[in-house]
Amino acid sequence: MKRRTFLQSSAALAAVPLLRNTPPGATLALGASHAPLRVNGARLNGWLAKFDSVGRTPTGINRVAYSDADLAGRAFTLDLFREAGLNPRIDTAGNILGRLDGTDRSLKPILIGSHVDSVTDGGNFDGPVGSFGAIEVARSLREQNVRLRHPLEVVVWTNEEGGTVGSRSAIGHITPADLDKVARSGKTIREGIGIVGGNVAKLSEAERKKGDLACYMELHIEQGGLLEKAGLQIGVVEGIVGLRWFEVTITGFANHAGTTPMDQRQDAMLAAAKFAVAVNEAVRSVPGRTVATIGRMVVSPNTTNVIPGQVVLTVDLRDLDAAKITHFTDRFAQIGQEIGTATKTTFDIKQSVDTAPAISDPQVMAWIDGAAASLGFTRQRMPSGAGHDAQEMSRIAPMAMIFVPSVGGISHSPKEFTKPEDVVNGADVLLNTVISADRAST
Amino acid sequence: MKRRTFLQSSAALAAVPLLRNTPPGATLALGASHAPLRVNGARLNGWLAKFDSVGRTPTGINRVAYSDADLAGRAFTLDLFREAGLNPRIDTAGNILGRLDGTDRSLKPILIGSHVDSVTDGGNFDGPVGSFGAIEVARSLREQNVRLRHPLEVVVWTNEEGGTVGSRSAIGHITPADLDKVARSGKTIREGIGIVGGNVAKLSEAERKKGDLACYMELHIEQGGLLEKAGLQIGVVEGIVGLRWFEVTITGFANHAGTTPMDQRQDAMLAAAKFAVAVNEAVRSVPGRTVATIGRMVVSPNTTNVIPGQVVLTVDLRDLDAAKITHFTDRFAQIGQEIGTATKTTFDIKQSVDTAPAISDPQVMAWIDGAAASLGFTRQRMPSGAGHDAQEMSRIAPMAMIFVPSVGGISHSPKEFTKPEDVVNGADVLLNTVISADRAST
Repeated sequence: MKRRTFLQSSAALAAVPLLRNTPPGATLALGASHAPLRVNGARLNGWLAKFDSVGRTPTGINRVAYSDADLAGRAFTLDLFREAGLNPRIDTAGNILGRLDGTDRSLKPILIGSHVDSVTDGGNFDGPVGSFGAIEVARSLREQNVRLRHPLEVVVWTNEEGGTVGSRSAIGHITPADLDKVARSGKTIREGIGIVGGNVAKLSEAERKKGDLACYMELHIEQGGLLEKAGLQIGVVEGIVGLRWFEVTITGFANHAGTTPMDQRQDAMLAAAKFAVAVNEAVRSVPGRTVATIGRMVVSPNTTNVIPGQVVLTVDLRDLDAAKITHFTDRFAQIGQEIGTATKTTFDIKQSVDTAPAISDPQVMAWIDGAAASLGFTRQRMPSGAGHDAQEMSRIAPMAMIFVPSVGGISHSPKEFTKPEDVVNGADVLLNTVISADRAST
Repeated sequence: MKRRTFLQSSAALAAVPLLRNTPPGATLALGASHAPLRVNGARLNGWLAKFDSVGRTPTGINRVAYSDADLAGRAFTLDLFREAGLNPRIDTAGNILGRLDGTDRSLKPILIGSHVDSVTDGGNFDGPVGSFGAIEVARSLREQNVRLRHPLEVVVWTNEEGGTVGSRSAIGHITPADLDKVARSGKTIREGIGIVGGNVAKLSEAERKKGDLACYMELHIEQGGLLEKAGLQIGVVEGIVGLRWFEVTITGFANHAGTTPMDQRQDAMLAAAKFAVAVNEAVRSVPGRTVATIGRMVVSPNTTNVIPGQVVLTVDLRDLDAAKITHFTDRFAQIGQEIGTATKTTFDIKQSVDTAPAISDPQVMAWIDGAAASLGFTRQRMPSGAGHDAQEMSRIAPMAMIFVPSVGGISHSPKEFTKPEDVVNGADVLLNTVISADRAST
């Protein structure tokens, strides 16, 4: 009995009726236990395999935004839109958009998608899995004659890796200063948007307002090792962590390594080391998933026989809970103060990046959970430690993400890999989540 | 009575009879309390002031070995030798040597001197104080008609700052590989020796054998802050510390700063920080004057949002006691092992430089002590934390050094400064130490 209750509850949330040949606008029988739909997984993995040659270099995938390889990747993607019958257009920000009309003209669009640009020396899965997965979902719906009530829009955002430029444009969060920044390709973002077919002078035409969308969903590789370690197939993303970057300048006094006794030093390196150890201990001593990383350190004069007079280091702090980010910001300042006093150095801490956590919508997560359950996939709720276009969309629409495992937790590397079956699992979950969203949302 | 005993004892060691107008070869009245001799301090400081314009740049003194400024400095110095009647010659290593004959042809030379080359962006006192001080001592002896029993040789070593090249040549410790090294000037040492008037093909002609010299003494600025802090005028150097350099390569695994939980990291930066803190604590927990410095750190990939996969750092370890250097070499390896295990990283520690401590001769130190006492100068015994040509000479002759205070303990910097009165004090001590050595040694 208990088992049956669980199945009913699961079905109520997520079981997807077989919509094939259902007449447009037909009322769905809630609670009926129909089999979930499936995408054409072989086709999806075929696209990914073919795409692997676009921007491939000896050191990895190099489809950095606005480069020739990025343009080649976008041309490839536009063809997939066309083959899917999605009649693609490029908005003024350079995002690629396609659309399947719904049966109810009063309903807002459901938006799904990701990106196809890469980091320098990256892999073939970060972005393309979710982009091609979304195109495949739309194509499968058409091929299987499933007509949604809502319009379904598929988006491939431009320049995600350079700071979610396309999705930030779509929510009106791009400043003139952002446009003047030089991207990895060597072009400014202003130039780049023109290169990919946008129009900076009419950027506001790409904007969506709060409430314009029914919801936004994005399939992505995890880029970490939690799913693999737990032996699970699907991650239901509870949100994208907030991110704060600090630049810490530690000033001591450069002096002779041989003639300066240990108790008369103002050693910026020792102060930096104590800071790095204390930051790590502070974060690990509080339960939760906070991460703090000291990834960069520049030492002056950086000479074997001179006590360092200055160290500049960075701290990357992330958590899903904004209160924890505030807590650790204060804690790091306090640690710097204490170590500065103890080592006769000064700490100057500047905040350089500050992104608020983007919390997933509980209803969208429930649809994902239900879709995964109907497909029999093992899964867990988890935060995204990396940034995504979804974090921008969360500011204007109910958002959630679907994660599939990254082998070895490796990403932003030529070693990045997600198994073909996991790619298909993710697209199947996205497909059935779209159907749940279509059925339920208004 | 006690006080009188002390004065007698001090006089027995060091009091210098007034030798002016003493006929050559005259027997000195030991135990008599004559006034010490004095150098021409104004002249010595005048030379230093004039020399300050040679190689002066906006960022400091740049008389790096074999540069045009070094050649100009050597020309200036050769003139001082000539004016002092020292009839200078350049040996095959490029060292400048002058000589005052003694009255007893059976006695070995007393050698005094230092260097005039500088580091990049250095000061005007490291080297010239001892070089010009030695020339002034010889000139004062001549002018005051003091004839020594021993020959007195004055040396200005070439390329001290590039690894005591001149003095190592003089003890036969230069290898063909050393000659191929590129000096700060951009020239190889092989080229440089030719440029300053030496002859690499006949380098062995510059060699002195063990027992060739009566003793070697060098006046130098302290380059640290111990004398200033203690309010003392003269340092009697007990020896030059042994030096060992280590290059430590810490290998972890580079990964995403956002998606890798704190307990799944192999963070080379964290391991490096723990190592730096532990090395500092290890050295400070053992009483004594050991110094250990982590002066250089190179991080890969050194990016704010990537957990560092590799850190290469250096350790500079110094002590006058060779047993302590051995002890800490083992201790650092053990610390690396422990931290590597705890942080899932590997430590590879390579030794790159290894110089044994150079211990001063007790008799030469006693002469310095006595000379300083006869002049009424406050003083202490102390190690030299920096390397000097004296460390090479200690391998073949009884050696000791005389230190004068460095203002603020600053050296190898344009801020390097030693007060004129301290320069004169040091030269006066050297003068009277030479006389004590001449009287006593054979």
